[in-house]
Amino acid sequence: MPEAASAPTAPRATIGDSEFDRDTALTLREAGVYDIDLSAGWTIISAVNGGYLLAVLGRALADALPHGDPFTISAHYLTASQPGPAVVRTDVVRTGRTLSTGTASLFQYDEQGREIERIRVLASYGDLGSLPDDVRTTAEPPAIPPMDHCFGPEDGPAPVDGSSAIADRLMLKLDPSTLGWALGQPSGKGEMRAWFGLADGRDADPLSLLLAVDALPPTAFEIGISGWVPTVELTVHIRCRPAPGPLRVSITTRNLAGGFLEEDAEVWDSADRLVAQSRQLARVRLG
Amino acid sequence: MPEAASAPTAPRATIGDSEFDRDTALTLREAGVYDIDLSAGWTIISAVNGGYLLAVLGRALADALPHGDPFTISAHYLTASQPGPAVVRTDVVRTGRTLSTGTASLFQYDEQGREIERIRVLASYGDLGSLPDDVRTTAEPPAIPPMDHCFGPEDGPAPVDGSSAIADRLMLKLDPSTLGWALGQPSGKGEMRAWFGLADGRDADPLSLLLAVDALPPTAFEIGISGWVPTVELTVHIRCRPAPGPLRVSITTRNLAGGFLEEDAEVWDSADRLVAQSRQLARVRLG
Repeated sequence: MPEAASAPTAPRATIGDSEFDRDTALTLREAGVYDIDLSAGWTIISAVNGGYLLAVLGRALADALPHGDPFTISAHYLTASQPGPAVVRTDVVRTGRTLSTGTASLFQYDEQGREIERIRVLASYGDLGSLPDDVRTTAEPPAIPPMDHCFGPEDGPAPVDGSSAIADRLMLKLDPSTLGWALGQPSGKGEMRAWFGLADGRDADPLSLLLAVDALPPTAFEIGISGWVPTVELTVHIRCRPAPGPLRVSITTRNLAGGFLEEDAEVWDSADRLVAQSRQLARVRLG
Repeated sequence: MPEAASAPTAPRATIGDSEFDRDTALTLREAGVYDIDLSAGWTIISAVNGGYLLAVLGRALADALPHGDPFTISAHYLTASQPGPAVVRTDVVRTGRTLSTGTASLFQYDEQGREIERIRVLASYGDLGSLPDDVRTTAEPPAIPPMDHCFGPEDGPAPVDGSSAIADRLMLKLDPSTLGWALGQPSGKGEMRAWFGLADGRDADPLSLLLAVDALPPTAFEIGISGWVPTVELTVHIRCRPAPGPLRVSITTRNLAGGFLEEDAEVWDSADRLVAQSRQLARVRLG
């Protein structure tokens, strides 16, 4: 497999044949039960990215349910996942004509080999291709400078910590106006904006949108909080199959209170469609 | 407390002794399983209100889990509930020191007496009283006129359909600037704002906030859509125990596309705290 990554001369990876597809691939053990080896390629410091994990669970449900696209998927993060063996157990709650609902759980193993639940998911799936074309969106795409005015980990030792493996898998170009934290001058506004893609050039699909909503640095950094911000719960609505090309992701926090905050993400595609909306509740752990 | 409510001479109901408390009360059948007779008092036309149903499920989980307050609760609505007998089955997913996670399902019965699942819930609970007092919210309370400049069902045959039983249980005063739909002149903006309380004067608590986020007319009305807007999924974050007094509820829709829309609700208490945030995915059924 001739690895592409950010090398401009490498061939572009395609949907179905890319790092993301290989690292979310599941092996069917028995009906509704899937094995996977969680890749170390999607870690931030030592934690496995929550969006990558959601994509793994989302892919299992796409297989287990009669519909293939996550319309709304909620994940509660119970314990921290580690790279290595895991099992996904799915359960069909209801199948309907246009929507079906199911649950999925990701388990890993303790030293005695007992299963420990990492994440519990509840989701309703449908067929994005069957939806009518009407769009009456009043939301506007985020104001974000052209990509060559934005900054990624390859643009210097700052602003993004290069020690995280996930940085090599993503094409992430941050809006400089939300990068004050990296220079020691957080804006105080809970906003983060970026161009987003996969480093090997694979275009976006509904499953990779589950990764896109949780791939930017925490908005808490721009509020001046530098600790860990673990996700308690993340819900994503996938509203449209994304057009090819880079995505724009905007994340906003308005309510930091009582040691918790929400992060609202919007993902816009190259055709100016709002393709995903998400909200997470995260905990602030002061560093 | 000889305070007002809608009937000035009636004594105010209190938390624990009110219509809402009686109609969400569950009878323990066995560990984790609860019976309830769903009240016809919370119906809109013939449908049982989704927020009332979420409060029933939320109350069951508050009993079943070691923590009593819903921090984040996600409900997927599977089939339409009717007034009458129902059973709630809960399952504890994980109990931690500060958060515990569980699932709950509401079932009713078909003509053969078989259980039909109505709603599936996944939630993480904690103790709101244990949270620190820090608030760094940039969100602003909604701009809504004083209550005596707003309109409820008692102010005339329009604007709110008085045939819905729930109208008698709520103190709902709608901002006239989001009432154009009732006069045949929807603004085209997906916004709805109201003062909210319980008609018998019971103050708000975390469980009644689950009702508050889903009690206003659909934002779709102001976009000019008059059909039914059934909820597919509703997630609520309860962020603070509400202060006594009426609540302000603001609901916004920005993305109506492909026959689906999101409704984002904010609930503010009398102390200007953002006490709840919710988002739902709803389906547009053109009337």
